[in-house]
Amino acid sequence: KINADRLWDSLMEMAKIGPGLAGGNNRQTLTDADAEGRALFQRWCEDAGCTMGVDQMGTMFATRAGTDPDALPVYVGSHLDTQPTGGKYDGVLGVLGGLELIRSLNDMGIRTRHPIVVTNWTNEEGTRFAPAMLASGVFVGLHDLDWAYDRVDAEGKRFGDELARIGWKGDEAVGARKMKAFFELHIEQGPILEAEGKDIGIVTHGQGLWWLEITLTGKDAHTGSTPMNMRVNAGLGMARITELVHKIAMDHQPDAVGAVGQANVYPNSRNVIPGRAVFTVDFRSPDQAKLDGMKARLETEARKIAEDMGLGFDMQVTGHFDPVTFDDACVDALRRAAERFGYSHRDIVSGAGHDACWINRVAPTAMVMCPCVDGLSHNEAEEITKDWAAAGANVLLHAVLETAEI
Amino acid sequence: KINADRLWDSLMEMAKIGPGLAGGNNRQTLTDADAEGRALFQRWCEDAGCTMGVDQMGTMFATRAGTDPDALPVYVGSHLDTQPTGGKYDGVLGVLGGLELIRSLNDMGIRTRHPIVVTNWTNEEGTRFAPAMLASGVFVGLHDLDWAYDRVDAEGKRFGDELARIGWKGDEAVGARKMKAFFELHIEQGPILEAEGKDIGIVTHGQGLWWLEITLTGKDAHTGSTPMNMRVNAGLGMARITELVHKIAMDHQPDAVGAVGQANVYPNSRNVIPGRAVFTVDFRSPDQAKLDGMKARLETEARKIAEDMGLGFDMQVTGHFDPVTFDDACVDALRRAAERFGYSHRDIVSGAGHDACWINRVAPTAMVMCPCVDGLSHNEAEEITKDWAAAGANVLLHAVLETAEI
Ligand SMILES: NC(=O)NCCC(=O)O
Ligand SMILES: NC(=O)NCCC(=O)O
Repeated sequence: KINADRLWDSLMEMAKIGPGLAGGNNRQTLTDADAEGRALFQRWCEDAGCTMGVDQMGTMFATRAGTDPDALPVYVGSHLDTQPTGGKYDGVLGVLGGLELIRSLNDMGIRTRHPIVVTNWTNEEGTRFAPAMLASGVFVGLHDLDWAYDRVDAEGKRFGDELARIGWKGDEAVGARKMKAFFELHIEQGPILEAEGKDIGIVTHGQGLWWLEITLTGKDAHTGSTPMNMRVNAGLGMARITELVHKIAMDHQPDAVGAVGQANVYPNSRNVIPGRAVFTVDFRSPDQAKLDGMKARLETEARKIAEDMGLGFDMQVTGHFDPVTFDDACVDALRRAAERFGYSHRDIVSGAGHDACWINRVAPTAMVMCPCVDGLSHNEAEEITKDWAAAGANVLLHAVLETAEI
Repeated sequence: KINADRLWDSLMEMAKIGPGLAGGNNRQTLTDADAEGRALFQRWCEDAGCTMGVDQMGTMFATRAGTDPDALPVYVGSHLDTQPTGGKYDGVLGVLGGLELIRSLNDMGIRTRHPIVVTNWTNEEGTRFAPAMLASGVFVGLHDLDWAYDRVDAEGKRFGDELARIGWKGDEAVGARKMKAFFELHIEQGPILEAEGKDIGIVTHGQGLWWLEITLTGKDAHTGSTPMNMRVNAGLGMARITELVHKIAMDHQPDAVGAVGQANVYPNSRNVIPGRAVFTVDFRSPDQAKLDGMKARLETEARKIAEDMGLGFDMQVTGHFDPVTFDDACVDALRRAAERFGYSHRDIVSGAGHDACWINRVAPTAMVMCPCVDGLSHNEAEEITKDWAAAGANVLLHAVLETAEI
């Protein structure tokens, strides 16, 4: 078993860096707070006897040597970056759970044949720089390194420049590492495990996703002196398409979700009819046909709404992945570990995207989840219990031990 | 007739002060550019033989003496301040049209029994220091002088301090002047006159207004892993109320407008269901019952939408005035003047707020409007023609001549 108190203390210690306004965290990727969190993680890893490698995307790899110099490492990990109003566990539990696994092996004096590597993937959240899971996406060859460097945040700052500025642009080529397997521990970010009273979710699949960005172009005009029939109101168009996104998701129940997350109108003044609206759509489903059907229907019907209103319409894809099926052997290893501890568990589909969804393309991969209170995540009030965290880390420990071979 | 070329040249000369980035103006109130514009206007007025008075709000009064020392003056004017990305004519036409009227009387050697005063009201726009029409509001006793002095801009600078800094805090008590009448020439800021091919709008009424700010409180949650039936989506609530605002305005046609101008969701992240939305509503009508009916219906139905969705609901009033009926005699004088020139004209309701709407409370008042291209205003691309400007100034000249008595 891992040391539950030490894991919890480390989670609380990390949460002091980039505190939020309401008890959670704002440690967005490539900020000064991110740099500070990385430095703390590095210190902890080195104290635990690991060697740190950093790749050109800033992803951190802390290696605990194995007994066989030729054996492929077993990887674990997740991400330390957070949403702007994020929680203390989303991502962090997977990274510090991995560190705790190594600290526990040290305590127990256990050596493994295969090295074990704890990973902190850069920019999982994708809020500051879209898309999400950026560094793991470059790692598996989905994105070019230069394309990733050219992503810009809302202030126009480049990913590559910000990575250099915070001092975490490493030398290692991205994707050079070969893995025996990758395991990611994560909070569920949804309400199912808690509602069913399950300790553990064994993630067999991940939802596919379409991220879309829609721009409507109307005409700025005075709210007072422009007759209703002469308005080309981009904000009203945004409202209609927001309702449409909701309706499309409802029409694809069960196993489908959809929402508008970002919504911006310009010039955003009380007495000016918005001449431009820019907003984002997030559709997900574990069912490929539903996923693609939602996007196709939106494209047709949203364009029609815009045309009927005289609005210019543009829709860009800003993120996409197909539904994911995780590796049977890795899934079984996690299930066996949960059984060994007598934890109640169920198979589950990941509603969120995770670095594991990308790594699954280049290595045998699976995920284990623990519940979170009220299913709340991407919220400063995100909460879990020490027992839930410990159960997740114990399952991770045993699946890794089995795979890395004692 | 006024001298159309001289009026146009003066408009172009004034537009050189506080130039914008896109062909318009940024001559916001109490900036150095505002001071420069005021100094130029004073020089022009004095060259035309006028005496300048300045009150404690910085409002400028250029007086052309009448033949009867006991006769109440006839006032004309508007404002020289602009939006941050404003046009060359909004306000300026009314001030320089008044100056041109005096220059023309000088050319023609015409004396009037009543003095004529050209006014430049301080801070009509209200963008730098809210609310709009600030100095005219103090003039008619709606606001206290000290309250006005305490308004602060986005940088925390006080109105009173900035007025003193630019050297235009006068000695004259605010509101001390009695007027025989007040006439304001202004661009329409809407599309009606141009669309109907009319030279002149005779403003019979000004719309009343409710400015409201609504806050919806839901629950931030993950867009991917939160089932549809567990969402409390403040952004979706904002969309529904935005549609409701539009529907309420449409249900009150004709003579009613409504729109959401500012729309903000939080945390405004692609993969977070918005937990909070803050947005503004602008309802206007020249019909008191419609105006108040729109607000009352919004309050009831928007609250119901929020409650049905489990959203917290708060609605604040951030601005209000009742509809204005301009003075019949002043309106008739303007209409007669338009007829005399053979200008095509129609009665029109001012969609926007103007200094004349406040002055109407203390003196017989009316407004005359000229078209503007595409109804565009509060936009650097705001445009009018020399002919439109001249027609408006000619109507102003003849209404003033009739009222000031030759
Ligand atoms: N786990 C997580 O929240 N990842 C961010 C990408 C997503 O929205 O699924
Ligand atoms: N004329 C004008 O745009 N005034 C500003 C106040 C309003 O929105 O009506």
